[in-house]
Amino acid sequence: MHHFKYCNHELYCEDVRVSDIAKETGTPVFIYSKNTALDHFKKLDQAFASVDHLICYSIKANSNLALCHAMAQAGCGADIVSGGELYRALKAGFPNDKIVYAGVGKTREEIRYALENDIFMFNVESFPEAQTINEEALALGKKARVAIRVNPDVNAHTHDYITTGKKENKFGINFHDAPEFYKNLVSMPGLDVAGIHLHIGSQILTPGPYTDSVRRGISLVQQLKAMNIPLSIINIGGGMGIIYKDEEPMDAQEFAADVIPLVKDMNCKIVMEPGRHIVGNAGILVSKVVYIKETPVKKFIIQDAAMTDLIRPCLYDAYHEIKPLVESPDRPVNHKDVVGPVCESSDFFAKDRHLQDMESGEYLAVMSAGAYGFVMSSNYNSRPRACEVLVDGNQWRIVRKRETLEDLIRGEVL
Amino acid sequence: MHHFKYCNHELYCEDVRVSDIAKETGTPVFIYSKNTALDHFKKLDQAFASVDHLICYSIKANSNLALCHAMAQAGCGADIVSGGELYRALKAGFPNDKIVYAGVGKTREEIRYALENDIFMFNVESFPEAQTINEEALALGKKARVAIRVNPDVNAHTHDYITTGKKENKFGINFHDAPEFYKNLVSMPGLDVAGIHLHIGSQILTPGPYTDSVRRGISLVQQLKAMNIPLSIINIGGGMGIIYKDEEPMDAQEFAADVIPLVKDMNCKIVMEPGRHIVGNAGILVSKVVYIKETPVKKFIIQDAAMTDLIRPCLYDAYHEIKPLVESPDRPVNHKDVVGPVCESSDFFAKDRHLQDMESGEYLAVMSAGAYGFVMSSNYNSRPRACEVLVDGNQWRIVRKRETLEDLIRGEVL
Repeated sequence: MHHFKYCNHELYCEDVRVSDIAKETGTPVFIYSKNTALDHFKKLDQAFASVDHLICYSIKANSNLALCHAMAQAGCGADIVSGGELYRALKAGFPNDKIVYAGVGKTREEIRYALENDIFMFNVESFPEAQTINEEALALGKKARVAIRVNPDVNAHTHDYITTGKKENKFGINFHDAPEFYKNLVSMPGLDVAGIHLHIGSQILTPGPYTDSVRRGISLVQQLKAMNIPLSIINIGGGMGIIYKDEEPMDAQEFAADVIPLVKDMNCKIVMEPGRHIVGNAGILVSKVVYIKETPVKKFIIQDAAMTDLIRPCLYDAYHEIKPLVESPDRPVNHKDVVGPVCESSDFFAKDRHLQDMESGEYLAVMSAGAYGFVMSSNYNSRPRACEVLVDGNQWRIVRKRETLEDLIRGEVL
Repeated sequence: MHHFKYCNHELYCEDVRVSDIAKETGTPVFIYSKNTALDHFKKLDQAFASVDHLICYSIKANSNLALCHAMAQAGCGADIVSGGELYRALKAGFPNDKIVYAGVGKTREEIRYALENDIFMFNVESFPEAQTINEEALALGKKARVAIRVNPDVNAHTHDYITTGKKENKFGINFHDAPEFYKNLVSMPGLDVAGIHLHIGSQILTPGPYTDSVRRGISLVQQLKAMNIPLSIINIGGGMGIIYKDEEPMDAQEFAADVIPLVKDMNCKIVMEPGRHIVGNAGILVSKVVYIKETPVKKFIIQDAAMTDLIRPCLYDAYHEIKPLVESPDRPVNHKDVVGPVCESSDFFAKDRHLQDMESGEYLAVMSAGAYGFVMSSNYNSRPRACEVLVDGNQWRIVRKRETLEDLIRGEVL
């Protein structure tokens, strides 16, 4: 569900004509629909209303301050993975006691920074990390609330998992080692071992993998309780999928309907960390056609956005819908490649895509670019990064300026 | 060939102990050897001394101003692919008449900017681009020197080509259409149609693909001469490979020995565009070990550099040697993964690599990170970008400052 729709063959974001924005800001530009993101948050929040819960928006998906500020104002917490994200989360106005901190490589300095700001919880991923948190907490005279990230090692072959919940990767603690790991951590005086963290991957479309994972987690929580290690927090992670093409992802209610029965009698706070689910469909990348190039074997739309702006097609072979800002039903539709100006064959947004003919100077929208778009952008080929726009009803404003040529060389000397 | 070597089990860049730099700058840090880059340029320059030639360093490989400045001072030209790279090239001190401009998506504004600065030549990749250059040149009362990028469409199966010289991609003009294309362009009054541009790919290890490509190019030049379209420039492109692991690339002399006989009687200036060849082995990425993590199935070195600093292993499945800054021959050597802190399974530098045991706080070098390293880096996971250091003999200095947390949110508003 999102607020991008055609009206009289022109694409609108909420109540603003997208081309009006592009003409004023120039291209490429990321355009976010504030109310799409808020709707997704509210639906999830309402779906879990019957249990004590905290939704922590995973700001690595889109860490734009204005968008994060809107989420924070709506009552959402933040899932962070670095000191930089903590800095952003605090600037955006997320309450410190709604911030959870994940990641395998938290440095001592980052841990101290988080402790100084009394964040809600650390998701611990290794024993030496736990030792470092303990040391830093003791040095500051504090007790750090921690959950342990446990790999449920659910069967990847029967579900559409990505790999982060499996035992061969760098994340978390092996399920069978977890009881011993908890026992070691509860003996650390700087730690308040309060929770379990489960995160199995991303772009998951059905509740099945979650319920498998949560069942495994609950069995561990019960085992720990019997060991006199009572937990009060179950973090069920993120990874809820969205529609890029023809996916049929579960909605918030279906998800909650399957998960709540498992956890409602556990007397635990349920934390979740949605990122893409909140913002993926809440953003588009708008570009301008530079040249139409026809070769004997291909037709190319060369436009002014690139893999430097949105690397997902190049990096993950990801599918993104491409739409003209102005639909022209009378024009021929045929197969073409939509490519960028970067000097790599991998700089493309679509291959052999069925699209209407376009002309130089016209605009395109790359849909579902709200998550893992701008945050992964680079200055490769010395391209200034795009600007970002936030739309709210019939209002829009630039929430991050386009970079200038001067920005490219900031901090450099001859 | 490069100036990174061990002395008493400690890694040096030229005459500077690398750990001395890392301790002062912090990590991650890119460290470049100025004399490695200059040596590569000089060897290539000397190898082609018997023919009129211009070496244009492809600054997309590493556009650091100080490194580019050193190349410019040595007499090198620049190969650029965007307005941003033109800005950098001029700042770095490359003479405008040694700058060639390639790329499929040059915008009208970029073309004007290049014309205003009287660059040496445009490499034209499509008919509408030629029209735009013509229009802008006429508007400025200038004549734009252009080469046409022709795809030699050499057989990819018999050589280790990458894909940029084939007819299915977005680059250049189909070989068989080239004569007609030239004919159309010479009629444009704003263009001085002076050359042919051949670029067949990257990380090419033997002269064979080049000689195939140049032979095709020369046959076209002769055909054009017969059509009364005399060319004076043959741009043989870039793409010369380097050693990442156990490659045995041609050296400059072998390359020249095979190419020069083909072109020496053509009475043309030979342009070439090496990037990786010049700087690939001239840089390393130094990181610090954060945690050692052992699981029942794997041993991980979690260090503080990430795919955000060097995306090649993640994006191209590229191999990079990993070396400790201090060799400890007495320590156990075993298989481990070297991973970063970013929350993606794809954030790794090496998998199952045979490496000595390391401890938290010790330093590693990711070798051959001079090309397509920093230039492709991002702020993903809100990670400030690394700093860059240039070493010259026993001197070193920071040539780009590490980004700060404040830099992350520059240009953003709530």
